Amino acid sequence: MRDGTSTSDGPRVDRRRARTRAALLAAAERLIVDGSAATATIQQITDAADVGFGSFYNHFTSKEELFQAATAHVLEEWARLIDAAVADTDDPATRFALSFRISARLAWTHPALADVLNQFGLDLLDLEDGLAPRATRDLADAMAAGRFTVTHLPLALSTVGGSLLGFLRLRSSHPDLVAVDDVEELTGQLLRMLGLDAAEAERLCALPLPHVDA
Amino acid sequence: MRDGTSTSDGPRVDRRRARTRAALLAAAERLIVDGSAATATIQQITDAADVGFGSFYNHFTSKEELFQAATAHVLEEWARLIDAAVADTDDPATRFALSFRISARLAWTHPALADVLNQFGLDLLDLEDGLAPRATRDLADAMAAGRFTVTHLPLALSTVGGSLLGFLRLRSSHPDLVAVDDVEELTGQLLRMLGLDAAEAERLCALPLPHVDA
Repeated sequence: MRDGTSTSDGPRVDRRRARTRAALLAAAERLIVDGSAATATIQQITDAADVGFGSFYNHFTSKEELFQAATAHVLEEWARLIDAAVADTDDPATRFALSFRISARLAWTHPALADVLNQFGLDLLDLEDGLAPRATRDLADAMAAGRFTVTHLPLALSTVGGSLLGFLRLRSSHPDLVAVDDVEELTGQLLRMLGLDAAEAERLCALPLPHVDA
Repeated sequence: MRDGTSTSDGPRVDRRRARTRAALLAAAERLIVDGSAATATIQQITDAADVGFGSFYNHFTSKEELFQAATAHVLEEWARLIDAAVADTDDPATRFALSFRISARLAWTHPALADVLNQFGLDLLDLEDGLAPRATRDLADAMAAGRFTVTHLPLALSTVGGSLLGFLRLRSSHPDLVAVDDVEELTGQLLRMLGLDAAEAERLCALPLPHVDA
């Protein structure tokens, strides 16, 4: 009977554990997107997740650990949304340009998310999820198609990523020094650097941006 | 007499205080350049500075505060060395190219210093001393001279700085993915982005580097 009890209880306990964990992550993601992650207490998080205070420590050893997991999830979700928005675009250089413009515009369209990217800083380039793997894919495709003439993929990712993060940081630290139109100026510079001629870079920067369904 | 004592003691005490502070900063700078700053204890720092353990807290509230001051000083010294090395160069675009190549090569020539830059990350772009103000000056001069065609100075600094830091980070995190020759590939890409044509960018990347007297 003891064996029978544990086999029937096991999955139920597992399901409850998984629900609690998912509720904590969802609450943390809402706090991140609201921009109130830094000041939230564990009590506020468990209240927002509608779970008991004590259950927090069954899943995470600290607030930081929860927010790290939640942040990775938020970034991956955003990368999927952007991917979906440009999925109809066959040309990889165009896909890259549209994705980059949407990402840099996050500083205006979704400032709390831009703050998350800022906090990650250049470590973002080493994440297995999120924007970096998509940018790597688009850069590689555009090189293979002969659209971009640069040949060193990690170097290209590093330059593009460093420029994006420098730009988001500039907007965050000195909001008076950059306007949303500068996104296209930056994108055009990077496209020329990657190997497009000036006219083609300008054309890609003038394309209407697809709707991102957030 | 009391007044007389304090006026004659005052400057002597001030001089001793200044010497102790300078000795602590110099010891911290040696530890930074050796790459052992992260593990050093306050006892080891005061021993290396040849000052009493207790005197540390007359000058700094924490090890972090000392290392922050020492790091800013190290970066400013390096910026001065690079400035001196390219001082004979009249053309601001050439000065920019040479300085950038020397800075990116620090990952190979002075890895501990490159680590310091890595630790600062993009915050480096907001420091009042060090590399960022020199890069700003060279970029502004090259724009004014019509050598660089970009027009947005903070954006140019942000892209150049983000690319440099991305590159130093790539070298530090994935040493197998970049070689010292890639410094010229990166510099060439940035020079084309700033507005030089490909041949001129290539010429500046092939110039012999001046000796930096460190």
